[in-house]
Amino acid sequence: MGLNAQEMKAGFVQRVKDFPSNLKDGVTKRIKNVQKFGKDDPRRIIHSIKVGFALTLVSMLYYVRPLYNSFGVSGMWAILTVVVVSEFTVGGTLSKGLNRGFATLIAGALGVGAVHLARFCGHKGEPIVLGILVFSLGAAATFSRFFPRIKQRYDYGALIFILTFSMVAVSGYRTDEILVMAYQRLSTILIGGAICILVSIFVCPVWAGEDLHKMIANNINKLANHLEGFEGEYFPSPEKILKETNSGVRGYKSILTSKSTEDTLANLARWEPGHGRFRLRHPWQKYLKIAGLVRQCAFHFEILSGYVLSDVKAPQDLVSKIQEPCSIMSREAGEALKAIAISIKTMNKDSVCANAHIENSKKAIENLRVALKSSSSEIETGLLEMIPGVTMASILIEIVNCVEKISEAVGELSDLAHFKQNLDPKLSPELGQQHQNQQHLLHRGSVKPVLEGDNEEDCNSSAHVLITVHDEQPPTTNEKKILGVEKTKVDVV
Amino acid sequence: MGLNAQEMKAGFVQRVKDFPSNLKDGVTKRIKNVQKFGKDDPRRIIHSIKVGFALTLVSMLYYVRPLYNSFGVSGMWAILTVVVVSEFTVGGTLSKGLNRGFATLIAGALGVGAVHLARFCGHKGEPIVLGILVFSLGAAATFSRFFPRIKQRYDYGALIFILTFSMVAVSGYRTDEILVMAYQRLSTILIGGAICILVSIFVCPVWAGEDLHKMIANNINKLANHLEGFEGEYFPSPEKILKETNSGVRGYKSILTSKSTEDTLANLARWEPGHGRFRLRHPWQKYLKIAGLVRQCAFHFEILSGYVLSDVKAPQDLVSKIQEPCSIMSREAGEALKAIAISIKTMNKDSVCANAHIENSKKAIENLRVALKSSSSEIETGLLEMIPGVTMASILIEIVNCVEKISEAVGELSDLAHFKQNLDPKLSPELGQQHQNQQHLLHRGSVKPVLEGDNEEDCNSSAHVLITVHDEQPPTTNEKKILGVEKTKVDVV
Repeated sequence: MGLNAQEMKAGFVQRVKDFPSNLKDGVTKRIKNVQKFGKDDPRRIIHSIKVGFALTLVSMLYYVRPLYNSFGVSGMWAILTVVVVSEFTVGGTLSKGLNRGFATLIAGALGVGAVHLARFCGHKGEPIVLGILVFSLGAAATFSRFFPRIKQRYDYGALIFILTFSMVAVSGYRTDEILVMAYQRLSTILIGGAICILVSIFVCPVWAGEDLHKMIANNINKLANHLEGFEGEYFPSPEKILKETNSGVRGYKSILTSKSTEDTLANLARWEPGHGRFRLRHPWQKYLKIAGLVRQCAFHFEILSGYVLSDVKAPQDLVSKIQEPCSIMSREAGEALKAIAISIKTMNKDSVCANAHIENSKKAIENLRVALKSSSSEIETGLLEMIPGVTMASILIEIVNCVEKISEAVGELSDLAHFKQNLDPKLSPELGQQHQNQQHLLHRGSVKPVLEGDNEEDCNSSAHVLITVHDEQPPTTNEKKILGVEKTKVDVV
Repeated sequence: MGLNAQEMKAGFVQRVKDFPSNLKDGVTKRIKNVQKFGKDDPRRIIHSIKVGFALTLVSMLYYVRPLYNSFGVSGMWAILTVVVVSEFTVGGTLSKGLNRGFATLIAGALGVGAVHLARFCGHKGEPIVLGILVFSLGAAATFSRFFPRIKQRYDYGALIFILTFSMVAVSGYRTDEILVMAYQRLSTILIGGAICILVSIFVCPVWAGEDLHKMIANNINKLANHLEGFEGEYFPSPEKILKETNSGVRGYKSILTSKSTEDTLANLARWEPGHGRFRLRHPWQKYLKIAGLVRQCAFHFEILSGYVLSDVKAPQDLVSKIQEPCSIMSREAGEALKAIAISIKTMNKDSVCANAHIENSKKAIENLRVALKSSSSEIETGLLEMIPGVTMASILIEIVNCVEKISEAVGELSDLAHFKQNLDPKLSPELGQQHQNQQHLLHRGSVKPVLEGDNEEDCNSSAHVLITVHDEQPPTTNEKKILGVEKTKVDVV
């Protein structure tokens, strides 16, 4: 017992001695974490500074005497507005700012009306009438927030409507300066909202639409990376294993559950004015369609990975039959996706190469069919042993179909969004080179029938130019939904 | 031209004539829509009334003179708090209310400290010091909101922190009654928050945890329904087609993208106190694990449905071989899922029947293997034609594995959440009957080895009791995410 107590005491002393160094380690570790977090997406730091800046700007209403004299204590509404309206994306800020502004205007007018109405009912009736009005309008507006269409676009507006109406109506019972109060509240909210929107648009803006655009392109790239890695995973060979980079291969996982992020971004993007390459009525809904197809493709990957990871592999004689067509299928489908992703990123109509790759993978499907047709008589192993291999091939065929659908949907998008017909060679020498290759290909294709091997090689060579454009972003495991906006750093080519 | 103008005029007159009836039709249609929407989930109407009630209650601060005299204009903070804090679920209200309360307390104290600090710097230095403090604390708090852990639980608190600190610090520049102001703001917020929380908990509460619980059980039920319908879809026979109810068969689709709803509910559930059958530290994380497995299973359904819907069917000789084991597999897996769903809904440990069904479907897998082993020599069609059938069977095997994993995870949950070991026969005569059957089964199993056919029949008979408990909810197509909470009406047995 005595020993035990001594041990405990010694342990305690040790811990006290270690405390400063432990604390230091902990603090430095935490600081490094924060630094890394900021570096992952520097826009976060910029956004924080923007909010601080807008706050300081709006405090001027208090510090500067002439401003304070005209607004008085109502200046706090401006501060409140800045804090609440400052969202990460321009679309978020605009949506909240406009909702807040219009809801305050409408509810303020109704509130003033309600106060005047209630005054007709005498001093005793006044609180009763006001109470009934506040109850019924509050309940009705709360109920309206459940409707999906209102919830999606005007949820915040409905909230502010209830808030403002109740406040104006109830305050009106105690003060006669109801109009002055409503005016001050409205004007300070307008000032706060305007400061926020201006800062959000003109100081390093973060556009929800651009994020969505990049996110879709990046997701297609993830699929492409996975398809490229598939051959090495399923048909490992010594030289391939060395080359194999496992990073990014499981990147498609995040696509499986990215629907809500995409919906949010598309929803916010609709509020944004035209900017850069995006016009005012950019077809954001089309992006959601593409995203759905991409997710469908990712579902197939998820099932496929079960077969890749399982120990039950197809027998060697079957593998030797299907390896080549399957490898070509996955590789070509991957190349097609890369071309599609680049077409989206650069906003250039460029489906020539993608289509060529899809055609190649379809040819490989035919070869696979031929191989399987012949194999059923030759192969000696039973049907049972062949299940994993056959299933894998079958899902791979479905994936090629998915890729074709994605290509079609992106084609529709490129028409609606007025993607440029030709690549601008000034953009990048590599892309110009690639573009010339494609022009060459197009031209040849229209003049004389292209030999199969010839075409394939040519497109592959241009594809090799494409492959050099890699996604540098390391795959990260932890979820990065921030403000409903997933981190979508993409290396725009 | 004259004719055209006359036609146009006639059309216009007609439209003016029709206007009243059109308007009436439109209005009645809309009213019916709203009624239907309210009936779909009456909790929405109740919630709206609750908010109206809380608002009216808090307006008393203005109407009643003694209350007004002690709080003055600050009463509006109480109104603001009620409007903002009133969330659909108890967890949402508690999380917002507590966040708001504590953030106001901390930020208010810091703000008062900042004002006193700034006063040391003289009249000229005061706004500069205050500006720097507002800027830096505002930016830091905004940045902290990006961290996933803070974002998940304390996002609203951080927002209110920025708000309160800025307001107190900046107002302090103009008024000496800073302490009075801070006290009034804090106490009115406490009153508003308390009213909201009390109304939310004691008037028809909507528990996020219960919603999550029901949602998971309901999702498992959707999988079960789909598996039950699978046999009829893939192997249609005249009498089955008549029986086939297509409703609910595609219900699993909503599971594919329900992750964000589940995460939100689990997040809110953690704020809720113990209620009904749920204790304070109910293992909500475990629900998310089960939900992930359920979604995995739904992914398989999604791929499988591609084969079910495709025109390329397996050749008849293969179908005749695999039909029986596949039917048994899907049926038994469906039964197992039904049993699991009921076990969750009733919170009773009841994996006996589920396990028996899983064992049955595993036996069917073995039969399938045997059938396939023998078929490779007998069947005359090539491997190519067999692909769809083989793939279907292969995915079905994966689904059975998924079901087993779900069963295991639910087993873990039932241990952690202290599900009752035995069914209370008082709960429902049907369940009591079923319970007795299982007891019987258990008992027999431990005393003498149960004959295979015997066991199967017995469990099936008890399963027939289970099947009578159907999900009455009609499948709805439109998305029902309301306040991030999907509608999850489940008929609790």
